[in-house]
Amino acid sequence: MKKILTYFVVFLTLIGCENKENYPENHKKTRLNTSNIDKEDVSTFGIVIHGGAGTILKENLSDSLKRAYIEKLTEAISVGNEILKNGGNAMEAVTKTINIMEDSPLFNAGKGAVFTHEGRNELDASVMDGADLNAGAVTGVTRIKNPIDLALAVMDKSPHVMLSGKGAEEFAKEQGFSMIDPTYFFTENRYRSLQNVLKSENLEKVDSNKISFQDPFINDSKFGTVGCVALDKKGNLAAGTSTGGMTNKRWNRIGDAPIIGAGTYANNATCAVSSTGWGEYFIRAMVAHDISAMMEYKGISLQEAAREVIQKKVPALGGDGGIIAIDKDGNIAMEFNTAGMYRAHINAKGELTIGIFEENERAK
Amino acid sequence: MKKILTYFVVFLTLIGCENKENYPENHKKTRLNTSNIDKEDVSTFGIVIHGGAGTILKENLSDSLKRAYIEKLTEAISVGNEILKNGGNAMEAVTKTINIMEDSPLFNAGKGAVFTHEGRNELDASVMDGADLNAGAVTGVTRIKNPIDLALAVMDKSPHVMLSGKGAEEFAKEQGFSMIDPTYFFTENRYRSLQNVLKSENLEKVDSNKISFQDPFINDSKFGTVGCVALDKKGNLAAGTSTGGMTNKRWNRIGDAPIIGAGTYANNATCAVSSTGWGEYFIRAMVAHDISAMMEYKGISLQEAAREVIQKKVPALGGDGGIIAIDKDGNIAMEFNTAGMYRAHINAKGELTIGIFEENERAK
Repeated sequence: MKKILTYFVVFLTLIGCENKENYPENHKKTRLNTSNIDKEDVSTFGIVIHGGAGTILKENLSDSLKRAYIEKLTEAISVGNEILKNGGNAMEAVTKTINIMEDSPLFNAGKGAVFTHEGRNELDASVMDGADLNAGAVTGVTRIKNPIDLALAVMDKSPHVMLSGKGAEEFAKEQGFSMIDPTYFFTENRYRSLQNVLKSENLEKVDSNKISFQDPFINDSKFGTVGCVALDKKGNLAAGTSTGGMTNKRWNRIGDAPIIGAGTYANNATCAVSSTGWGEYFIRAMVAHDISAMMEYKGISLQEAAREVIQKKVPALGGDGGIIAIDKDGNIAMEFNTAGMYRAHINAKGELTIGIFEENERAK
Repeated sequence: MKKILTYFVVFLTLIGCENKENYPENHKKTRLNTSNIDKEDVSTFGIVIHGGAGTILKENLSDSLKRAYIEKLTEAISVGNEILKNGGNAMEAVTKTINIMEDSPLFNAGKGAVFTHEGRNELDASVMDGADLNAGAVTGVTRIKNPIDLALAVMDKSPHVMLSGKGAEEFAKEQGFSMIDPTYFFTENRYRSLQNVLKSENLEKVDSNKISFQDPFINDSKFGTVGCVALDKKGNLAAGTSTGGMTNKRWNRIGDAPIIGAGTYANNATCAVSSTGWGEYFIRAMVAHDISAMMEYKGISLQEAAREVIQKKVPALGGDGGIIAIDKDGNIAMEFNTAGMYRAHINAKGELTIGIFEENERAK
């Protein structure tokens, strides 16, 4: 019952996010430096990001930490927005924005990646270009500071879509990527999370799968992934997703983040989507492609498609998480069936919307 | 023009395959041992397999080799058909049928796997169960005789969908799989193919990507994959795909075969699909899931959806290959945009259809 109520509140909240022209009054927005934009000249463009969905509860997030997240989300999305505003392309906005989140220990991607069962950090990332349906992905890399850049290089500089592990790193070397020392990814609290999960495996009645998504910042479970989708002034869509996966990951498990169609999808005819959720369910539900397919074949809106997949199809399988998406007209969706999702959006007017819990936040 | 004509012929040919009740007279069929089937009792069931699509030309396939393929396809599909006829489940029929093809050097999967750039054999496989949308996949395994069995174990015995490389093999060990010596996969002619590609890399004006799909049996390019889809008497659909990838594969490349939604997809509400094609294009087009999505959201038939994806969407990206599929009512599709595809189908009446080139063959 509580879950249904939650869905209903999320549903009500997100109705307001669907159309950028139609935010209810209680959605607080902040206008970024838009002084140099001639409104008559602006073609529609927009950008949306997420920093992971999960059981993000107000009581578990201190004011200072909340401020840190809001500041980092604002910094990241502003980078991409600036690129788009100046006529740059969607893919550049997506990757440069994700770089900021990869470099922050706040998110489970890049610097803040969680630890595998063996105490390593194995990173996954993917990108897709809606203009030509080209895509690139890497999985299980351990020495690449910004995996999203390597995913982009796979797309642009190789005949392949997906490379993995040592092979992906050999390709990176050939492309001139620096190989960083894996200790770069060490963060004390992510390492403690691994120890907690390893301890829990020896306890009865503990769902070590559930606890594998434990996030040290919120003391509860969260699907640590970062993602970005963008629409540029030329009408091109792009999507990207980067992650450190799940704590205590074993057997070189591959989640949804590097899987085109599950974690990432972009198609100029429909929308661009980046997922953050329990990877196995997001693969089985083909979340990102399914949203696009519903728009294309059923003719429904992005928000309707996103709601159907995240509020019905994924929960029906037993999974949870969320997505961010933008369509070819600049409409967006920030849909999740968890208590919260770190997220932000800037539209063509420079209006910034930030959210952590169900309702959106004021940026400052 | 030739291509259009080819498509038209394929189109005409395959119209006949769509409805098992409605084969034109020129489609030769063979009835298998159906003597013990009481027609009134038989619920609809069916099975379809492929052994790879490509430039399979009559002039390049000797009579004895053609006979060998037809015999092996018949042997494989009969195993699955027997399971289905006796009320067994679709997933068992799919995996047991694929095992036969994996154990044959004729196909680029299991025993007949092609060599990577480094002279190794790295195998991929995936399965999906249409009843609960559960799925399992492995990529880059080198010591597993039947990768499809490991994909099934990932689905049934792990909380994950996709495992890779050494990690997947550790999981296999824990599950009691035998680790075979990688020399098991050595076959003289596949090794020669690698040498030819390596040589071609030093020549100008040779598309080493194209030549990487060179098949020693037909002296032309072929996407070496095996796959099976089945509908059982309980109305459950299942799909599976197994491959050795592309010759001269580098950087731990992952193709479409182990990607749920690209190489393999099954959903009791729509259909089960297994792909065989140029993996990169099949991932970007999300071939298997797209066919299902078109059926679900546009309400078109399996054959219409398969034709749209294989004859229009994939070629529009520059890719080629084919699929086999069966829907919840037992209608099938065996669609390809290449010169040929090794394929076979048995319907609930026990009627066997086998094809290599555009038109179908008599089994003997």
